[in-house]
Amino acid sequence: MNVRLSGVFPPIPTPFTPAGEIAHQQLRENLERWNGFELSGYVVLGSNGEAAYLSESEKLRVLETARQAIPPDKLLIAGTGCESTRQTIALTKQAAELGATVALVVTPHFFAGKMTPASLTAHFQAVADAAPIPVLIYNVPKFTHVDIDAPTIATLAQHPNIVGIKDSGGNVAKLADVLRQADPDFQYLAGSAGFFLAALTLGAVGGVLALANVAPQQAIDIYRLSGAGQLEPAVELQRRMVPVNDAVTARFGIAGLKGALDILGFYGGPVRAPLLDLTDDEREMLQEILKGGGIL
Amino acid sequence: MNVRLSGVFPPIPTPFTPAGEIAHQQLRENLERWNGFELSGYVVLGSNGEAAYLSESEKLRVLETARQAIPPDKLLIAGTGCESTRQTIALTKQAAELGATVALVVTPHFFAGKMTPASLTAHFQAVADAAPIPVLIYNVPKFTHVDIDAPTIATLAQHPNIVGIKDSGGNVAKLADVLRQADPDFQYLAGSAGFFLAALTLGAVGGVLALANVAPQQAIDIYRLSGAGQLEPAVELQRRMVPVNDAVTARFGIAGLKGALDILGFYGGPVRAPLLDLTDDEREMLQEILKGGGIL
Amino acid sequence: MNVRLSGVFPPIPTPFTPAGEIAHQQLRENLERWNGFELSGYVVLGSNGEAAYLSESEKLRVLETARQAIPPDKLLIAGTGCESTRQTIALTKQAAELGATVALVVTPHFFAGKMTPASLTAHFQAVADAAPIPVLIYNVPKFTHVDIDAPTIATLAQHPNIVGIKDSGGNVAKLADVLRQADPDFQYLAGSAGFFLAALTLGAVGGVLALANVAPQQAIDIYRLSGAGQLEPAVELQRRMVPVNDAVTARFGIAGLKGALDILGFYGGPVRAPLLDLTDDEREMLQEILKGGGIL
Amino acid sequence: MNVRLSGVFPPIPTPFTPAGEIAHQQLRENLERWNGFELSGYVVLGSNGEAAYLSESEKLRVLETARQAIPPDKLLIAGTGCESTRQTIALTKQAAELGATVALVVTPHFFAGKMTPASLTAHFQAVADAAPIPVLIYNVPKFTHVDIDAPTIATLAQHPNIVGIKDSGGNVAKLADVLRQADPDFQYLAGSAGFFLAALTLGAVGGVLALANVAPQQAIDIYRLSGAGQLEPAVELQRRMVPVNDAVTARFGIAGLKGALDILGFYGGPVRAPLLDLTDDEREMLQEILKGGGIL
Repeated sequence: MNVRLSGVFPPIPTPFTPAGEIAHQQLRENLERWNGFELSGYVVLGSNGEAAYLSESEKLRVLETARQAIPPDKLLIAGTGCESTRQTIALTKQAAELGATVALVVTPHFFAGKMTPASLTAHFQAVADAAPIPVLIYNVPKFTHVDIDAPTIATLAQHPNIVGIKDSGGNVAKLADVLRQADPDFQYLAGSAGFFLAALTLGAVGGVLALANVAPQQAIDIYRLSGAGQLEPAVELQRRMVPVNDAVTARFGIAGLKGALDILGFYGGPVRAPLLDLTDDEREMLQEILKGGGIL
Repeated sequence: MNVRLSGVFPPIPTPFTPAGEIAHQQLRENLERWNGFELSGYVVLGSNGEAAYLSESEKLRVLETARQAIPPDKLLIAGTGCESTRQTIALTKQAAELGATVALVVTPHFFAGKMTPASLTAHFQAVADAAPIPVLIYNVPKFTHVDIDAPTIATLAQHPNIVGIKDSGGNVAKLADVLRQADPDFQYLAGSAGFFLAALTLGAVGGVLALANVAPQQAIDIYRLSGAGQLEPAVELQRRMVPVNDAVTARFGIAGLKGALDILGFYGGPVRAPLLDLTDDEREMLQEILKGGGIL
Repeated sequence: MNVRLSGVFPPIPTPFTPAGEIAHQQLRENLERWNGFELSGYVVLGSNGEAAYLSESEKLRVLETARQAIPPDKLLIAGTGCESTRQTIALTKQAAELGATVALVVTPHFFAGKMTPASLTAHFQAVADAAPIPVLIYNVPKFTHVDIDAPTIATLAQHPNIVGIKDSGGNVAKLADVLRQADPDFQYLAGSAGFFLAALTLGAVGGVLALANVAPQQAIDIYRLSGAGQLEPAVELQRRMVPVNDAVTARFGIAGLKGALDILGFYGGPVRAPLLDLTDDEREMLQEILKGGGIL
Repeated sequence: MNVRLSGVFPPIPTPFTPAGEIAHQQLRENLERWNGFELSGYVVLGSNGEAAYLSESEKLRVLETARQAIPPDKLLIAGTGCESTRQTIALTKQAAELGATVALVVTPHFFAGKMTPASLTAHFQAVADAAPIPVLIYNVPKFTHVDIDAPTIATLAQHPNIVGIKDSGGNVAKLADVLRQADPDFQYLAGSAGFFLAALTLGAVGGVLALANVAPQQAIDIYRLSGAGQLEPAVELQRRMVPVNDAVTARFGIAGLKGALDILGFYGGPVRAPLLDLTDDEREMLQEILKGGGIL
């Protein structure tokens, strides 16, 4: 199966109404606005989508809405990874039926100590065998405490239905090692804007960047400048985005991402408990950071 | 609400058929056999129950079956903790309707970095407010990478519907600190046999012990000897159980627990992928360990 | 070699003058005061002795002074562990010449990833072969990020010149496992007051407790009550000491330990940079904690 | 003070005779051979120099020998960081007297939990105030478990005698953040070949690379190609070096680095205990890796 994962993909948040239900209309409107940028597609139901906080049926309804609002020429990468292999397969099939283009499958992690190369290999191969759509491995040690290693990735890269990896670990030495060992058509996506330019330089084809939700043009510009060999302005832009990226990821988390969307005229809305919404002080700090980055 | 959590509770595994479906009949038979011991009750849908690998509807059917097989005088502690507060409340209510006596609520953990004292406090208080049955906090840093601290526990202990904590962390200094700060009726349950006797000595009322699945009498004996002030034989027994406990927890995981049950004439059966069943070599090692501990 | 390590040993801090030089006279006076308690001896040049901040020659002069002030019937356990085997052997020999009774040898740790069972075994055996005095293994994962495992300890326990372990890890399951596997005369010392009573219950012979510097009588009382089977008052005392112990260890570190000594009429004095002395606010909090624990 | 840290610096190992003494003659000969490459200088007494295993006097003698063998136009960067501020100052002064050009000062780390921004700032400022030569901060979380943060680095960058940082952490997002916040003349050196090219792309001026001991020309080529904007061959070379770099760092450690030097005709020699020399099997694997990387 052949799918090109080049370019920039925002992992979109799932908007909720003040009462905590999924805000389908606002999801649609956000997507329509993002559609105005030359993004290659979207990750729906990723970590930033609070997928961990959605019921099985909510996940499917979010995918339906998203598919309607995403033009056919843009990819819909659906987060379908669950803890068990069978649940992951089931959700992947349902997502494919609803029009998802690619399945983003996170490493299982509750029993992190048992997620050995052998168990991870068996898991991803079984999912890829059963999946009607291409599989993208999702490695995010910050949340999973599992860090799939380069030889295991290289083995999985041989599977015809495993097309790449979204790696949020930020280990660029590993990126170089993966691309050295893997098939030449295996696609590496940077999982955070913090090392996006570095990853592109070393051979990544694109990025799944929380930053791209709030600064889509800047993320696309880093991608284009890098592709055009214009490293100097790319480095300048990458540096300028560091505090913005930090604010919508590690520092303020999803509440920060949603808060920034609210400030920028998208619909951010509340996070689901146990996450906490931004305090007023945090919202002001965030506003300053967005101004400092030239986004606001 | 007043519920006594004294004594020994095995966190039972969820049996699966060779085809991977829930083996309700075998679950019943296992429980009938355990009912012959003076266990105070059972934890159903805990970590050892592979709850992370069950769908929402499977969880409810397991509870139904378990409730039928558990005599009314024994507690059914149901694992109802989910990542989001609303899912946790919903599942807790359903579990209560199905006859669960106590809800075991794990600390949410996917966004571990955001699980601050404030967010954990809000989560457990909201769940306890809504729960029709008493809530038992479940702290298991090995799996969650979240370690709820003593002051937060002490705050939660003031809630009339939060009756205690199952702590698998093994930090006995923290245990002493929790019991110093908390209300006198707050109940501490050791979450692993490795520090069961130490915890009892310091004021724990009982234990939720994977070991109690395979060595229920030995676990009960440690509890009784400790209560009777007979420390010497208790220490001897505790020491003898160390390798057995290690085999059915950290070393071989749930596959080890299920393998040991198979060896001992219970129904263990397969684990769900991505977990891997024991190899033949591991099964032999396990057999030796059970013999060494005087269980086989 | 036969040395009894039963009882309570404070790991004494090294006092410095305001100018940062070793305060030999104050070291003597502190020891004279501690000599009034039924402590079994002292650890000199341990972590709390800021050994990491002393030059080679300073270490020897501290040992000299300490030896003069410590009565012959009390043990002088000297911290002689260095990163390299040869340095450790050299310092152990010098310490023995200066009258140290036992050498406390920390696990090397700078290259923690290479401190395998094989390299640790070789290290401790070489040191024990060469040491003119008995060797006590010192395991303190909090500082070293190395946690020597039970089988390795059991192997080392067979060496006639390795008499025990001071374990500050607080893992009482491991303690039970070590005592199960090791020779019956292998002596386990709890390395922190937080799990002192639990450790004694499970077979530890004593403790090296920072708390014993500031609350020697209370530490001795826990030891005695436990030995006499009077668990209830022992538990009560252990609980009461938790915040005091926390204040002079994890919370305020060595600055807290020295600050508490100053408050109690010993000589604490300044810590060496890069450690920072207590702020005024911290000193007040400490005073309250000492009062709360009934020490002041 | 103005010193240019551009280019490639190998952190050289300290050679020992089979009897374990410092092999001064072999140190000289190694340096003479490295002098044939366009390296910008050397790091002496770094982590790879087994500085943790050298006595105070051995360190000075190694510096003396190195200074004699290093031409005046190449920098001698001396590892002078100790745990205490006073020891670090003393050793830095001695190193300067022996002709060291720059002092490489590792973050103190034994009491890692107390190494706060405040204590690290005070430490480096005190050292920089007292040092007769420029100070280079050395951040190596893998060994120290301390990771100095970007704002602290930016603060330290304002000190006229702190000229840069050698960061082995591999966090390129942090690199971008440091260079965004710090003075424009603050120099960033990559501390490992694994992310050397990525770091250069983002603004690093050079690298201190264990790899440069065994593959000096390849390391220099990556630096030059990057500087000339020839990213494609640079990426190819960077990828090819990944397994070689891994072999002489994380995988086989200093024993691997010394083993590789032996294979390549330098003098590697034994490591000091508790490190273990390579087994025969490991040496063969290493040989294959060197061949695979085109070094042998």
